[in-house]
Amino acid sequence: MLDRIRIILLGTSHPGNAGGAARAMKTMGLSDLVFVNPRCEPVEGEAIARSSGAEDILHQSRTLDNLDDAIGDCTLVVGCSARSRTLPWPMISPRELSTRLPREIMRDEGEPQGRVAILFGREDSGLTNDELQRCHLHVHIQANPEYSSLNLAAAIQVISYECRQGMLAAETSADSDSEYFGVAWDRPPAAQEDVERLFVHLEQSMIRSGFHDPAMPRQLMARMRRMLMRTRLDDMEVNILRGMLSSFDKFTPPR
Amino acid sequence: MLDRIRIILLGTSHPGNAGGAARAMKTMGLSDLVFVNPRCEPVEGEAIARSSGAEDILHQSRTLDNLDDAIGDCTLVVGCSARSRTLPWPMISPRELSTRLPREIMRDEGEPQGRVAILFGREDSGLTNDELQRCHLHVHIQANPEYSSLNLAAAIQVISYECRQGMLAAETSADSDSEYFGVAWDRPPAAQEDVERLFVHLEQSMIRSGFHDPAMPRQLMARMRRMLMRTRLDDMEVNILRGMLSSFDKFTPPR
Repeated sequence: MLDRIRIILLGTSHPGNAGGAARAMKTMGLSDLVFVNPRCEPVEGEAIARSSGAEDILHQSRTLDNLDDAIGDCTLVVGCSARSRTLPWPMISPRELSTRLPREIMRDEGEPQGRVAILFGREDSGLTNDELQRCHLHVHIQANPEYSSLNLAAAIQVISYECRQGMLAAETSADSDSEYFGVAWDRPPAAQEDVERLFVHLEQSMIRSGFHDPAMPRQLMARMRRMLMRTRLDDMEVNILRGMLSSFDKFTPPR
Repeated sequence: MLDRIRIILLGTSHPGNAGGAARAMKTMGLSDLVFVNPRCEPVEGEAIARSSGAEDILHQSRTLDNLDDAIGDCTLVVGCSARSRTLPWPMISPRELSTRLPREIMRDEGEPQGRVAILFGREDSGLTNDELQRCHLHVHIQANPEYSSLNLAAAIQVISYECRQGMLAAETSADSDSEYFGVAWDRPPAAQEDVERLFVHLEQSMIRSGFHDPAMPRQLMARMRRMLMRTRLDDMEVNILRGMLSSFDKFTPPR
């Protein structure tokens, strides 16, 4: 899906920004880069240096002399813009763009059909009204109103990140089984019967040490339960806690 | 709310990255920056130049020589990390972090209560295991697995963007403020300095009972940390656990 998203840079002045754009794109799995009327040579020394290993994106980029050729085969054209100009235009957040992308690109159930262009303007003056009006939508990065100075590579980083998020969300709505706390865990979750034995043991050990008085229970065991239940103990953790309690039991008086 | 999010950079080598970090933060309205043991002078010429108008963030930053001082007053500690090391740790996406932040910070309906630290490691080697184990959660930017080379400023740009998104979403959804674990909680979260004292106490008590041999530590303390960090202890739970340990200490031999 990410190969159907095209980043288009209009009138770029600094080759370093071309390189930074390529790097930002590649970190998020985007690869289709087009320059329209760049005001510098975007695939040379400084651009290559700043791309920092993403020079393949630069080498396979295209340089065109008009925007219409760059967006001709696209089904959705989005312009990255500061808050709207004289004529208000439909405006979405990067997050909303991310949510729309899968259904824009995967129009039918089989092959991807759509192609999305995202336009970024000049370092100094952004996109012209004419360019903005070639867009279906404008996307606005909601930066700090007192300091909204994202450079070009930073803006592309944020938008590319959201594109990748959209794709990942579409993929994982399938399954995420073996995950526990968001990662592949090293131990299986504890069986509840073992957790219950742990609570019995804990209560006994705390009575033996004098910390817990069953005649005056207050909420002690309830708080211990709440704390250990919400942590979702794994099997080794139950064993460790029981081992620790046994090591204390060797010193405390038997009941 | 954004003023209660602290970005902590550990062992930064390049002043340019310090400046890029400040700029990325400021574009998203973050301002609390701490350097821990930087391997360069992070508030000087090249850093100022790269900050590009965000030099106020650098001038008000602090430089400390240990991580514990940097996170002591925080209620949630998050480490930005590549996929997990030997011991898996709870892992979330930047998006999930964004969703959690409002209820982490705005615990009660009135004043903000929480403070969140987000840790970024060295340019070359990231965060150490010891640093990662001081975290409640790890956050992983799901980059292109074949080219995950986000530089430090780009990673901070993405995370700061998500922090701002979280705040904007919270503002528009009015209230889910006083929620913690999805309900109104009865106790405030523990400050990290109190949690660290608990770990010191726990280790001492386990040594005295003979359960823990510091000469053969295996992963015992790491597993204890992982279990208690992910449960997000509240202040009373820390007091209960310390009280319980003290009750055992009365019986075990002093070291």
